[in-house]
Amino acid sequence: MTKLRHLIDPQDFTVEELEELFSLADEIVKNEKKFKNVCDGKILATLFYEPSTRTRFSFEAAMLRLGGQVIGFSEPGSSSVMKGESIPDTVRTVGSYVDIIAMRHPKEGAPRYASYYSPVPLINAGDGGHQHPTQTLTDLFTIRQTKGRFSNMTIGLCGDLKFGRTVHSLIKAMSRYENIKFILISPDELKVPDYIKTEILDRNSIEYLEVERLEEVIQELDILYMTRVQKERFFNEADYIRLKDSYILDKEKLKLAKEDLAILHPLPRVNEISYEVDEDPRAKYFQQVKYGMYVRMALISKLLGVM
Amino acid sequence: MTKLRHLIDPQDFTVEELEELFSLADEIVKNEKKFKNVCDGKILATLFYEPSTRTRFSFEAAMLRLGGQVIGFSEPGSSSVMKGESIPDTVRTVGSYVDIIAMRHPKEGAPRYASYYSPVPLINAGDGGHQHPTQTLTDLFTIRQTKGRFSNMTIGLCGDLKFGRTVHSLIKAMSRYENIKFILISPDELKVPDYIKTEILDRNSIEYLEVERLEEVIQELDILYMTRVQKERFFNEADYIRLKDSYILDKEKLKLAKEDLAILHPLPRVNEISYEVDEDPRAKYFQQVKYGMYVRMALISKLLGVM
Amino acid sequence: MTKLRHLIDPQDFTVEELEELFSLADEIVKNEKKFKNVCDGKILATLFYEPSTRTRFSFEAAMLRLGGQVIGFSEPGSSSVMKGESIPDTVRTVGSYVDIIAMRHPKEGAPRYASYYSPVPLINAGDGGHQHPTQTLTDLFTIRQTKGRFSNMTIGLCGDLKFGRTVHSLIKAMSRYENIKFILISPDELKVPDYIKTEILDRNSIEYLEVERLEEVIQELDILYMTRVQKERFFNEADYIRLKDSYILDKEKLKLAKEDLAILHPLPRVNEISYEVDEDPRAKYFQQVKYGMYVRMALISKLLGVM
Repeated sequence: MTKLRHLIDPQDFTVEELEELFSLADEIVKNEKKFKNVCDGKILATLFYEPSTRTRFSFEAAMLRLGGQVIGFSEPGSSSVMKGESIPDTVRTVGSYVDIIAMRHPKEGAPRYASYYSPVPLINAGDGGHQHPTQTLTDLFTIRQTKGRFSNMTIGLCGDLKFGRTVHSLIKAMSRYENIKFILISPDELKVPDYIKTEILDRNSIEYLEVERLEEVIQELDILYMTRVQKERFFNEADYIRLKDSYILDKEKLKLAKEDLAILHPLPRVNEISYEVDEDPRAKYFQQVKYGMYVRMALISKLLGVM
Repeated sequence: MTKLRHLIDPQDFTVEELEELFSLADEIVKNEKKFKNVCDGKILATLFYEPSTRTRFSFEAAMLRLGGQVIGFSEPGSSSVMKGESIPDTVRTVGSYVDIIAMRHPKEGAPRYASYYSPVPLINAGDGGHQHPTQTLTDLFTIRQTKGRFSNMTIGLCGDLKFGRTVHSLIKAMSRYENIKFILISPDELKVPDYIKTEILDRNSIEYLEVERLEEVIQELDILYMTRVQKERFFNEADYIRLKDSYILDKEKLKLAKEDLAILHPLPRVNEISYEVDEDPRAKYFQQVKYGMYVRMALISKLLGVM
Repeated sequence: MTKLRHLIDPQDFTVEELEELFSLADEIVKNEKKFKNVCDGKILATLFYEPSTRTRFSFEAAMLRLGGQVIGFSEPGSSSVMKGESIPDTVRTVGSYVDIIAMRHPKEGAPRYASYYSPVPLINAGDGGHQHPTQTLTDLFTIRQTKGRFSNMTIGLCGDLKFGRTVHSLIKAMSRYENIKFILISPDELKVPDYIKTEILDRNSIEYLEVERLEEVIQELDILYMTRVQKERFFNEADYIRLKDSYILDKEKLKLAKEDLAILHPLPRVNEISYEVDEDPRAKYFQQVKYGMYVRMALISKLLGVM
């Protein structure tokens, strides 16, 4: 991983590099104290050109738990002065003060453009509806830690599969492993885009099935990745009324599921997972939050070359 | 204090627990250096759903002086993303990143509700016009440090005694000590609410006196707790003009007061204490600011179980 | 420098005190690690009543690299609560929490007024169009580090010389050294104000020349300090069209310049320096950003008395 200075696209890592990263993250989970000074004297800048408190907190907590420090801005308002200047000048300036940058930007491609000029490692912390690579790392690490493997699995993706960038990235990432089957659960309006099917699934000869209702297939799943379904995305009210309950995971539906199912969600949720599910040992989404912090600790350490 | 995980209401502490807290705070005052690493590796989240720079600074400085770290947001703008999700989900998420939370919220009861779900200790940093327990701890600790006792005192409360939550909390808190007398100084419109008189003062057989003018009673006081009186609170202009100068503490009125009077104010002030009073050794309100930081240092240490 | 508690005006330092500061900054440049704990246990407050991300980052990175910590606010929004109170009360309160304050304020003179009441050292981080002393320190330190001297130099100042406070401060500061010649390059509308010429330049018998075009004089310069020229500042469109290219530094103009010219800019730039110039070894403006952080490290250390 020595040649990698930036993380812009979830696919920037090979399967081998991912495993190296995850095994470091796992070491941190098991013995966090050992790592509490590895970023001593280092500074992270969180440049958030749009607010995302959850992601910002995860990066900041990660850096602080490594013994590093943080400066940054968290919304357009406080960054207004820097918006007047070009991205190249901003990263060259900020890169004079800090050792690593996490950039969130509403404009697709801004972090990649920034990385060309950054004198320090730069992490894409989400660019519009485009990429959010550390969410994908979080999802993958959660699968690894809860299932103990990346291959030989049936993965259900449920909800809005059309606009959800995390879903598309997860399909791409998991398609690199052996014997993966996807079950794509969504209303017709919100199906996975065709290019994902042809360019990723078909090209890699990945088995997949498209269905409309979660209850039909939940018993087959090893992983269930839930996402939000917004009413506004439906073409007509009738469809919405007919289907909406199918995309809500509750105790009833869970009765049909495997004992060792792992339920993931990128959060925040609205109502697509009932609160009653939170107590079920198969609910892993809050664990996933914590894994997100650990995988960012590993990522920062790797990019800074301190581990 | 081992069973206490949260601080939501100023009455959450018994008199004995308070004394334990204050004697730790006093130790910190006397030997701050000794405590500079006790929160090493710990993180505080300041979740301020409404701005309160003064309170936020006090918490953050407290945590940093203990060797801990801080993440957070300070106003509705930057927290917008999290406002879309439920309080339980937010505290479970943030509680995955940090070791302790200070929450300020415009909605009464929000911190208590949050505490039911928080995996880490949660401190109410003010919830609307309801409670502000760390202000009460600050007031009490200032009384303890400046007077050397909590009993055998005449306490004057001056200004808006109707809407001031810090005044109500202070009455409740001090009513638990021996031989306390209150002198309640306010215009008729802004008198202490009846339930405070019947449920707190009368029930505990606390002596009290209600008067309209500070100059009438200032000579009797051991403590004078000043608060702001807003013109808008008066029913008629005539009353306001007749009384307004009675609620302004100046050098002239102070001539009548005891040598060892302690003047407190929760700050910020507008004009209810003249600037000329700042130089008087009896003015303790800036000392009170500093005690507020020390008592928060003690509180954080206790809740984290590091002291 | 023991008597100096605040930095409000760039002229607050004598030439000797400046040299003491710069030689400390130079030591930090050469051996940053040695200084990484000198502010251990100290806190800086950044009170930014108007946003200036660049300046705030420089102060915060400086304090963190010295092992200190930071609290603060970065824009009017989050400071709203404190805006209701007087500057004296705010600095006395904040000065109870922290060890040093950097204040940015849209109102001229606010930092000086604040310094009268501050219990801790206070640094003016820019007050409206008035003063920005740490920018001047940055400019001077960059000259010292790139040229190795402050005397015997021809300094070109190019662009808006009328409204640019950094230009005025630099003229004042450099006028204290030996054998300095200024070449003032600007359109007629944006010439250096008369009081600078009579009270600073003439009074100190400093040689200077006023010209309209950069290309006429660039070959004479040892330092070229570029600033932005806004179209709105011109009296008429014809002048703007005739002159605008004269205030843009590009590769073509640079061909005429000395081999050891140092190009400075307070940043952010708009288009007054072409991107192609960035690669030229004479371009020192990003180096200047870094020197700005180092000189603030030295300043904070000196004011806190830790070095």
